[in-house]
Amino acid sequence: MIEANLDDQTGEGLGYVMEQLLTAGAFDVYFTPIQMKKNRPATKLSVLADPQARESLTKLILAETSTVGIRYQTWQRTIMRRHFIEVPTAYGPVHLKVASYDDIEKKTPEYVDCARLAQASGVPLMAVYQAALAAADQVDKED
Amino acid sequence: MIEANLDDQTGEGLGYVMEQLLTAGAFDVYFTPIQMKKNRPATKLSVLADPQARESLTKLILAETSTVGIRYQTWQRTIMRRHFIEVPTAYGPVHLKVASYDDIEKKTPEYVDCARLAQASGVPLMAVYQAALAAADQVDKED
Amino acid sequence: MIEANLDDQTGEGLGYVMEQLLTAGAFDVYFTPIQMKKNRPATKLSVLADPQARESLTKLILAETSTVGIRYQTWQRTIMRRHFIEVPTAYGPVHLKVASYDDIEKKTPEYVDCARLAQASGVPLMAVYQAALAAADQVDKED
Amino acid sequence: MIEANLDDQTGEGLGYVMEQLLTAGAFDVYFTPIQMKKNRPATKLSVLADPQARESLTKLILAETSTVGIRYQTWQRTIMRRHFIEVPTAYGPVHLKVASYDDIEKKTPEYVDCARLAQASGVPLMAVYQAALAAADQVDKED
Amino acid sequence: MIEANLDDQTGEGLGYVMEQLLTAGAFDVYFTPIQMKKNRPATKLSVLADPQARESLTKLILAETSTVGIRYQTWQRTIMRRHFIEVPTAYGPVHLKVASYDDIEKKTPEYVDCARLAQASGVPLMAVYQAALAAADQVDKED
Amino acid sequence: MIEANLDDQTGEGLGYVMEQLLTAGAFDVYFTPIQMKKNRPATKLSVLADPQARESLTKLILAETSTVGIRYQTWQRTIMRRHFIEVPTAYGPVHLKVASYDDIEKKTPEYVDCARLAQASGVPLMAVYQAALAAADQVDKED
Repeated sequence: MIEANLDDQTGEGLGYVMEQLLTAGAFDVYFTPIQMKKNRPATKLSVLADPQARESLTKLILAETSTVGIRYQTWQRTIMRRHFIEVPTAYGPVHLKVASYDDIEKKTPEYVDCARLAQASGVPLMAVYQAALAAADQVDKED
Repeated sequence: MIEANLDDQTGEGLGYVMEQLLTAGAFDVYFTPIQMKKNRPATKLSVLADPQARESLTKLILAETSTVGIRYQTWQRTIMRRHFIEVPTAYGPVHLKVASYDDIEKKTPEYVDCARLAQASGVPLMAVYQAALAAADQVDKED
Repeated sequence: MIEANLDDQTGEGLGYVMEQLLTAGAFDVYFTPIQMKKNRPATKLSVLADPQARESLTKLILAETSTVGIRYQTWQRTIMRRHFIEVPTAYGPVHLKVASYDDIEKKTPEYVDCARLAQASGVPLMAVYQAALAAADQVDKED
Repeated sequence: MIEANLDDQTGEGLGYVMEQLLTAGAFDVYFTPIQMKKNRPATKLSVLADPQARESLTKLILAETSTVGIRYQTWQRTIMRRHFIEVPTAYGPVHLKVASYDDIEKKTPEYVDCARLAQASGVPLMAVYQAALAAADQVDKED
Repeated sequence: MIEANLDDQTGEGLGYVMEQLLTAGAFDVYFTPIQMKKNRPATKLSVLADPQARESLTKLILAETSTVGIRYQTWQRTIMRRHFIEVPTAYGPVHLKVASYDDIEKKTPEYVDCARLAQASGVPLMAVYQAALAAADQVDKED
Repeated sequence: MIEANLDDQTGEGLGYVMEQLLTAGAFDVYFTPIQMKKNRPATKLSVLADPQARESLTKLILAETSTVGIRYQTWQRTIMRRHFIEVPTAYGPVHLKVASYDDIEKKTPEYVDCARLAQASGVPLMAVYQAALAAADQVDKED
């Protein structure tokens, strides 16, 4: 994980950096609101990435933000195995992400599918999501 | 809505105040992290309540917290009509909150039912929640 | 301003709602992290909009989110007069927003111009932004 | 209350504005972390002030920050009556703020006194604070 | 420490997970508001626990939340030695936690005792807390 | 990095601790709003410091706050080389921090200089900052 505390960067600039980091291959980028000295509201930038990408992402952060220093550290990770299945709903087919680890298995409707179908059908995102979960439940019963 | 900024109260004390205000009849109580002068991290206490309860809740806040002043203001509200139906799931019956406004209707599984059944059945909360949403979807299809 | 506290909505769903509300004509939409009862981290949704859009935006929020109630209130506003001028930089022309109120005048480079030129030129956003501010400073001197 | 959402201001600049607003007579100034469109972490600036100071503080905010608009609104307030008493502690005399409203009375050690004595005596702030509360408790018993 | 970023979990579900993790033996569980890509407000779940409990807590998080991955890392800790003493107050006896490390010693009233006595006596929590601190101060003088 | 979660400390006390830690030689101190069990809003204290200062800063935190335990961990850092140059502006000379790493170089106006000149000249901080950036841009062109 790469981190930097930013108190002399605007929110506009930070939104831009998030986009650049994701494009450059970061697994995930997130912001945490923090409070620094001299009554400064600030933002902590956190980047999860492959260790091999550290140097290039570090340079991107130093170039695009006002910080003069970043810090980094290795975390261990436990990741579930994933595959996708497709289920039918009244609004069209939706992919379910099937994640498993040991004896745990869970199915989650893919956000992009649900958002696309919701807009195409003119219904709330929740309606599509609920229909996809119902279809997932049906798959479970048939197993 | 009643609000107070608290920079000389502990988190322990704030958890206690939330409980007291809910017991005393507040509709809802929530905390927002804020940053006050002299580098002080602080908490904004917000209380949604019936205007008739304002005086008693104000006194409770003044007695239980370190603040010497509260502020308040009236908001208008739009509230959906609600009733409850019960649906069967593999883990037992769950109540659905059915909320409607104009041509909008939505069904949400009751959290307390799902939590109780999840613990009784030794399954994740999500499994019960998903089963209840599937049952809700079934009700929609039968309408 | 329209507000709703959401403790039974996912972050995914909230990102979707922000986009829908902006498309539907809200002036601005923002999220505030709050803490609700029963140890629930939650999000306050705030929407700034024309009073005439209130009913349609309310329906959008009730349809797309899990909340059963919204609250609203009128705020007064003081808005600076704005016009745009274009200034040259080494990376290409940038629009400056010139905002004025009484004897106050300030010039801000347009984010979208700077972002576009930064990507086209392969330089950091800050470099373009700084060049645009320098150009703004030049305009001030010539006034 | 005067408010503005700021997504193109740095934390440095915000710390400066807080100081300027307090110097210019605001009762209280606080920041709330918010999240605006285009993935921008931002800060809401809130200023509590006398209605008569609204115009001058508005101009200060428009001049010192990047925002082009502020919003404002009147809240009602309930404020406790306050006076100060002095109590002795092992570290020196401390002022207690005695606040009362209806049948509620509470005593709070003055932060500035405790901080000054802590530094002069080379003891933790908590030690002085605790001694002052003990002295307050003693006053209560003698009443 | 075990951490996971959650952007597709509701606040309701997160309150439930906190409870489950504490019951399962975590030392401490806390939430941090974060901001993820696609304008999603999200929550970082952090769990402090014995390294031996890592595998069972990881499985609990994967089963009960929507995340497909967790990360973890070992921190060193410095913990003060603690014992409890009981002091009398006007509202009944209160336990003080006495914590010591090197030449530092501090006494803190136990929250549960203060909360119980406050409710039994019908007085604010602060009144009991203040009385307990005064009693602690008395103990210090007698040492 | 040294960290502690604080749910039984007031904001006043935390502002004091930040000041003490910076005086005692910490590189940086910041607060993050967190949410702990029993509905407690709390604050995470983070201290960046030289490993050799760890023991003395740990003792300061244990003495000045209510926590009974702190945790710590080593992070790697990448720091840009820095030197300062002075540039003229219409308000007086301003130092620019010139930071470089590999082929990256950036210039940032020193906040303290800008703040001092803004107050001396009775102009907004932004005006001085903008003039300093324009001067930095001029230096770049001359290179």
